[in-house]
Amino acid sequence: MDKRIKVLEVKATILAENNEKAIELRDELNTKRVSYMNLMSSPGSGKTTFLCALLNLLKDKIKIGVMEADIDAVVDAETIEKVTGCKAIQLHTGGACHLDADMSRDGLNAINSDNLDLVILENVGNLICPAEFDTGAQINVMILSITEGDDKPLKYPLMFKESDVVVFSKIDALPVFDFNIDLAKSHIKKLNGKALVFPVSAKTGEGMDAIAEYILNRVKEIKTNK
Amino acid sequence: MDKRIKVLEVKATILAENNEKAIELRDELNTKRVSYMNLMSSPGSGKTTFLCALLNLLKDKIKIGVMEADIDAVVDAETIEKVTGCKAIQLHTGGACHLDADMSRDGLNAINSDNLDLVILENVGNLICPAEFDTGAQINVMILSITEGDDKPLKYPLMFKESDVVVFSKIDALPVFDFNIDLAKSHIKKLNGKALVFPVSAKTGEGMDAIAEYILNRVKEIKTNK
Repeated sequence: MDKRIKVLEVKATILAENNEKAIELRDELNTKRVSYMNLMSSPGSGKTTFLCALLNLLKDKIKIGVMEADIDAVVDAETIEKVTGCKAIQLHTGGACHLDADMSRDGLNAINSDNLDLVILENVGNLICPAEFDTGAQINVMILSITEGDDKPLKYPLMFKESDVVVFSKIDALPVFDFNIDLAKSHIKKLNGKALVFPVSAKTGEGMDAIAEYILNRVKEIKTNK
Repeated sequence: MDKRIKVLEVKATILAENNEKAIELRDELNTKRVSYMNLMSSPGSGKTTFLCALLNLLKDKIKIGVMEADIDAVVDAETIEKVTGCKAIQLHTGGACHLDADMSRDGLNAINSDNLDLVILENVGNLICPAEFDTGAQINVMILSITEGDDKPLKYPLMFKESDVVVFSKIDALPVFDFNIDLAKSHIKKLNGKALVFPVSAKTGEGMDAIAEYILNRVKEIKTNK
């Protein structure tokens, strides 16, 4: 059991160091009036598809860059650039299951964030570790695909606690899945009374205007330092 | 950058120690002729539903116990016992995103595995970390829900490399999702030429007999020490 305690202690130190760096990065971004949004979810919840639909609604209004974090592969950055024309870079985590504040800072430098209004990070597909590591983002958004089940807040509580916004994706598939929107919302409310919920279908466009408007308002608030 | 290297070194040591313990545990299980199956997937891919359907096909033929690993909650163990009547225990990982060999050993002792033919571990919903930590299981099965997309092997290659079997779940929903079974199979084949693929729907029962027969044969092989 000793080693497990040692592992937990090492992890606690890593998390504490990361938290400090994340707070520093967020302060800098606020001063520069650049918005940084961290998009998290399980693998395959539709992050990239959602992002393409969102970018197409926002790209003529504000200057946006996208950082795609993945263990491997470059498919997502290519897709984003092809479908939306927005600048996208790929960050490889070298096997790590999340992005931390240091990696965020490297990415923000690489994408030249000072010239942008909003940088969106598509985090590694994972409901656990990304919730533990503050990236320095001011806006934390998670996606729960309705195909994953309405019980997910019970199983991955930290992710739901850390998110400002929960997007229910793939709602066009609701007729073939047992997903109770009201039940999921009530699970979320118990964990995080402030979280906003946006049910969307990136495929049909349903609900996309509302989330785009929310993001735009947050970016404006950060721009005017409210 | 120093700290990141330190983190990677700590992780390498942890992984090496875990590997040794996993090999030891697997040897012991082989000697005792007890089968241990590790079931992995993303959150919400349908592990518990798949498991209930599988258990109902196997429970009259062999003695089975189930270990449900979760960060929190006890819903899965309760569901398994209610739906299948099989003995199920809940393992809480205390925030950890995977199960390791030590936690497996604790669980196998708690469920009294010496009196069983097969113990199935439902690992934490995560496509990354569980692939890195050998649990000591002889049979590694992963589920890819067709709602997650056919590109997942490109993004989470280690999970597909480490699995003996890939189950494509929720195939009853194929008509409403763009999932190309042949493309997904060809991605998997490039990573792991030996992996067997079983497309199933736990909802309609399609494909469940084939995977149940495969598991039964593996358990018989371990029983007869082939």
